[in-house]
Amino acid sequence: MRNGGAIRKGEATRQRIIARSARLFNERGFAGCSMQDVMEATGLEKGGLYRHFQCKEDLAVEAFRYSLAQAVKVRTDHLDRSRGAVELLRSFVKRFVATTSPVRGGCPLMNTAIDADDGNPVLRALARKGFSDWRARLSGFVSEGIRQGEIRGKTNPRRVANTIIATLEGALMMSRLEGKKTPLKDAQAALDGMLDRIAAR
Amino acid sequence: MRNGGAIRKGEATRQRIIARSARLFNERGFAGCSMQDVMEATGLEKGGLYRHFQCKEDLAVEAFRYSLAQAVKVRTDHLDRSRGAVELLRSFVKRFVATTSPVRGGCPLMNTAIDADDGNPVLRALARKGFSDWRARLSGFVSEGIRQGEIRGKTNPRRVANTIIATLEGALMMSRLEGKKTPLKDAQAALDGMLDRIAAR
Repeated sequence: MRNGGAIRKGEATRQRIIARSARLFNERGFAGCSMQDVMEATGLEKGGLYRHFQCKEDLAVEAFRYSLAQAVKVRTDHLDRSRGAVELLRSFVKRFVATTSPVRGGCPLMNTAIDADDGNPVLRALARKGFSDWRARLSGFVSEGIRQGEIRGKTNPRRVANTIIATLEGALMMSRLEGKKTPLKDAQAALDGMLDRIAAR
Repeated sequence: MRNGGAIRKGEATRQRIIARSARLFNERGFAGCSMQDVMEATGLEKGGLYRHFQCKEDLAVEAFRYSLAQAVKVRTDHLDRSRGAVELLRSFVKRFVATTSPVRGGCPLMNTAIDADDGNPVLRALARKGFSDWRARLSGFVSEGIRQGEIRGKTNPRRVANTIIATLEGALMMSRLEGKKTPLKDAQAALDGMLDRIAAR
């Protein structure tokens, strides 16, 4: 029992390190965030940190997973699936524009993509999988809409998915940089127009 | 005369440092690129480097300006203005999709936006101005098209400009990450569709 308690306590410390360092890595990137920064943010000594993570990459990987899971949750939980594929996609876009990722520093996928495209290969592979999963999910909604006769049969699901993701991510980058919602609102209007046009009539 | 020669030689060295460090900063970001890295890339000693730039920020600012100027040049030189605003915008999108920024590491504006949104304020201000100039240029094309009767009167120039920029930048990020052109090609198809619909008939 005492051993189980120690394991639980160790796991709680590990989770606390991940949660606290997630924001650091998301804001500063892999190269811009040192283990010294993590020590300061967590209040742990070097030994305590390395007991839980072999190296900075190990921690950055867990921090990325944590940030991504938080972002996916806030953007996809409880989407209304009752009104068909077009409205589902519309509500996904609306949610993305209206909500901020719970881990500060913007979208962890885009940050990691930009940070790792010429950098860390493990993080790059994780970001690639993140986009691939996201595209599969959105294009699945489109395919289902086509099957149900709600979306025009000649619509290309991958193209719709890629366009939604690219437009939202680009607009989020601009909105964060400029400190205003206008680029995101403009993106939403453009994507709503696209969704109107793929809807079967 | 000898003094003029020394000034010219100094200026040539300065320009060489900027050109060589532009790629480093574009690939690695401000925090991810040290003066040590720049010394290695240029073959200069610390003293030689600091003779030309007071600090890393000074050099990063010049490197960003250089990278941005190169990207703007390759993306906007010799665009065909003879066939009206819609075709001009279409050819701009096509050029963006077809050409790679001459300074390796992707779009310097997006890289700096992501790197500096929680980081260096001077670089952030420069990136903000870069997007603002780009938006002004594209929305100027739309406004001119409306005046000439080539674009529908109810079109919102800012919205069209923001959508083009966001979609292209997001798609470029995905294409670079995935090592394929598909996201950019999909973005081009979607933007072509949008341009078809704002054209006056």
